[in-house]
Amino acid sequence: MRKLAVTELQRIDIDTFKQSQKIPLVMVLDNVRSLHNIGSIFRTADAFRVEHIYLCGITATPPHAEIHKTALGAENSVEWTFFEDTIDAVKHLQAQDFIVYAVEQAENSIELTNLTLDPTKQYAMVVGNEVKGVGQAVVDACQGCIEIPQFGTKHSLNVSIAAGLVMWDAFKQLYGTINCD
Amino acid sequence: MRKLAVTELQRIDIDTFKQSQKIPLVMVLDNVRSLHNIGSIFRTADAFRVEHIYLCGITATPPHAEIHKTALGAENSVEWTFFEDTIDAVKHLQAQDFIVYAVEQAENSIELTNLTLDPTKQYAMVVGNEVKGVGQAVVDACQGCIEIPQFGTKHSLNVSIAAGLVMWDAFKQLYGTINCD
Repeated sequence: MRKLAVTELQRIDIDTFKQSQKIPLVMVLDNVRSLHNIGSIFRTADAFRVEHIYLCGITATPPHAEIHKTALGAENSVEWTFFEDTIDAVKHLQAQDFIVYAVEQAENSIELTNLTLDPTKQYAMVVGNEVKGVGQAVVDACQGCIEIPQFGTKHSLNVSIAAGLVMWDAFKQLYGTINCD
Repeated sequence: MRKLAVTELQRIDIDTFKQSQKIPLVMVLDNVRSLHNIGSIFRTADAFRVEHIYLCGITATPPHAEIHKTALGAENSVEWTFFEDTIDAVKHLQAQDFIVYAVEQAENSIELTNLTLDPTKQYAMVVGNEVKGVGQAVVDACQGCIEIPQFGTKHSLNVSIAAGLVMWDAFKQLYGTINCD
């Protein structure tokens, strides 16, 4: 099986990306500390045509050399907005009829395997700090929690992985609504 | 929605993990350069009860402080073996009846969305170097390629994210065969 050359992948450029259709999904980063994780989330969001990233609290913003190291330019393709307070970001989204979920292990959470998204609606997913997760007050402001089932020794996944799994599963359910050509 | 405390998650300890059932999946790392990526793959493999990780070529092995930073101890729960040459690892797996796929963008690849795994069989997935991907000779030794569809400006995902998506999708198809309690 011959590997495809980079030129054969026919990726779109940044201007085309900005004008392209996106899946109705916003990722909200609640006080994410690691610049590597922020950059990695931008890179995944670029691949799956995520509409917007909200960078909140201590989450650093582009341009930043350390974000660029893992985003590799995706920090320039995916739209982003900074919010001082994550709860303001959640309320801003809800005022525009977004359904906002925290990605957290919580009482009455929805398992990611059981999540069904309606392609006619708009969604936002909040991922949290590397140590503290999504703040309890932020969780309380959301419509629900999405939990990734885990069966190992560690209590959680890396935040860029958790965000990646959520974006991928949302993409699979929502990309039928957009033109990906 | 009250967040669960770490003690409420009832994670298993390392000894219990080692004796627990695993999904019939081996991850093969072909010359992965970044210690962060190696550690992150260990952490995800722990969460989804992956059977074994094969660390090949320049891929560093535990114990290593930089692997520990992202594995957070999962390098001690998930079994691993080092192979000097990735092709030897692939052949070793095939000799034990593993079906080995490279995670690559290649001619005649299977889209991850179309991948159907048979829970009675054993699988291995090879992920590659951050710049070069999986080597062409390694790809040629595999039974097929799995491709993650991507619609952004960048030509690929971070290797720890690609490995995470593949482990997650495999876990969802295979965990019915094991006891996760």
